[in-house]
Formats: sequence, structure tokens, C-alpha cells
Amino acid sequence: MAEQTRITTRTYCRCMRAEEIAEDLPVVDIDSDAVDAARKMAEHRLPGVVVTDAAGKACAVLPASAVVRSLIPRYVQDNHSLAGVINESMADRAADKLRGKTVRDVLPDNSEVSSADADDTIIEVAMAMEQTKSPMLVVMKDGTPHGVITVSGLLAAALKL
Amino acid sequence: MAEQTRITTRTYCRCMRAEEIAEDLPVVDIDSDAVDAARKMAEHRLPGVVVTDAAGKACAVLPASAVVRSLIPRYVQDNHSLAGVINESMADRAADKLRGKTVRDVLPDNSEVSSADADDTIIEVAMAMEQTKSPMLVVMKDGTPHGVITVSGLLAAALKL
Repeated sequence: MAEQTRITTRTYCRCMRAEEIAEDLPVVDIDSDAVDAARKMAEHRLPGVVVTDAAGKACAVLPASAVVRSLIPRYVQDNHSLAGVINESMADRAADKLRGKTVRDVLPDNSEVSSADADDTIIEVAMAMEQTKSPMLVVMKDGTPHGVITVSGLLAAALKL
Repeated sequence: MAEQTRITTRTYCRCMRAEEIAEDLPVVDIDSDAVDAARKMAEHRLPGVVVTDAAGKACAVLPASAVVRSLIPRYVQDNHSLAGVINESMADRAADKLRGKTVRDVLPDNSEVSSADADDTIIEVAMAMEQTKSPMLVVMKDGTPHGVITVSGLLAAALKL
């Protein structure tokens, strides 16, 4: 039924809207395990996941790059030249730095949800992506998250793949 | 044979190196069609592709975000509020802006190859990713590109997925 409605709409206006480009919403709770969030991104090759607060409201996008940053010991972040002196077995246990941490712990300061409206055109979505520099936009429909748009998903839509 | 060598190495030092994390190298020629580069990123859900010069040498990484930027008409880039007034059929033909353009045309100024050494540990790769802010690192081995590491690929390696 949903598919039928979509076809009718597209035949009518021949345009593609954010709502149609959106893919499944990958969600993690802000107080859930950071390892699970990292696993979700790694398994589905996602550039980020949407974070929800205690009330279930989308409150941020956690970029995969922020999780990668949290793998780096603080003293290496402060003195980059130390990256080379970490011994191999320590480097191989990089993910241990995530254990016991929650999504809240690895979320960058001032994180927010970069969003597009369900009705936005491809150009509006591209513009929102360019302005926010976010790897993932949350598509909002009637005030609730409907799905996400990634950079490669937007390219696929523009090329009508 | 290659697989056997890899297993032997890992059993011996129990550590993971950039060379092992690297995935297939997605390459486009700098003078090839920008549409083909966009299609490659869209189809394989890549955050970028490696660009080679006329001599076949890796000279840049083209981020998918740069291709998205090139979909936006110049007058909208200059005045963001105009994104909303582009009519639907124009927005739906966003990819037309890529046609006739080469990879060179859409490559950001001062693009370069962000790389990791084949021997780098996970921490060194994470550090290089953090410093360059590149969505994709080229793993160099004996002076030639061996493969690429994406953010989600690095997370998968850290989590031993």
C-alpha cells in the first residue's frame, strides 16, 4: 500500500523528495553501550548512527569518526608522535578503550541532529549536507525521524540508481 | 598462497596492521567522467575514491561529499536561501550538473592523498584518520597503493569483526 502511494506520487510530480531517498534509521540509545554502537556502524558500513535520549527523542548523530577518535589514547591525542611507540599488543586491543563506555561518553561536545525535511528536494538535501558537514542527515516527517540520508545514498538518488 | 602468508603473520605477532585492514582500492582516472566516479561511490557505498594521474600514480582522494557539493548550482552555493526556490524538475535533474565534467573538475582545491603505511597499527591508522579528516586512507606498500581503509572498515578491524 505504501509502495502504491509512492508510485502514484512520483508519477504525479516526477520529483524525488528526502522521504523517498531516506534509508532505515540506525538508532542507539544515549545510555547504551558504545561498543554496540561501533558494531552497528561497522557491520552496516554506516558513517554514523542516530542517538536518542531517555525520552526516545533523536538528540544527536554519532559520527563513526568520533568513535575512531575515542580509540586513540589521550596521551597520543595530546602528542601525536607517540602513536608510533605504542606496542603492537596495545594497539591490537584498541577497542578495549570503548568497553564500559556509553554512547554519551563518546559523543562529541555540542552534538546535534542534522536534519532534512521529508519534503526537501535533492538540492535542499545536498545543501543541508554541505552546510552541516554531517555524514548523515535525519529525515523528519511530522516531527518524528523517518529515516536517514547518507552522502552515498544521496548520490545514488541523484543518479537514479 | 597470499591468504596462507597472512595467517602465518597474524599467528606470529598477534597484531593487525594497515595492510590487513585494507580493502579493495576504488580507483578513477583524474580525466575520467565524474558521473562514473559518482556511480562507483553510490553503488559501493564508498565515502570516496582514489584518483590517479596520467602516469597512473595516486594523486588525490575524491570525497563523496565533494561530488554532492558539485550537484548544487553555484547561485545556491552563494545564497543558501535559494535552495528552496529551485523547482522540482530542476532539482530532480541535479546529476545533470555532473555530465560532461571530469573528476579533475569536481576535485577540491589542494586535494592530496591521505595515506597510511602498510605496517601501521590500528592506533596509527586511527591517528592518521583523525589528523587528515579524510573519509578514506590509502594504504601504501613499497611505494604503491595497496588498498584503502574507511572509517567503518577501521571500526570493524578494531572490533575484530
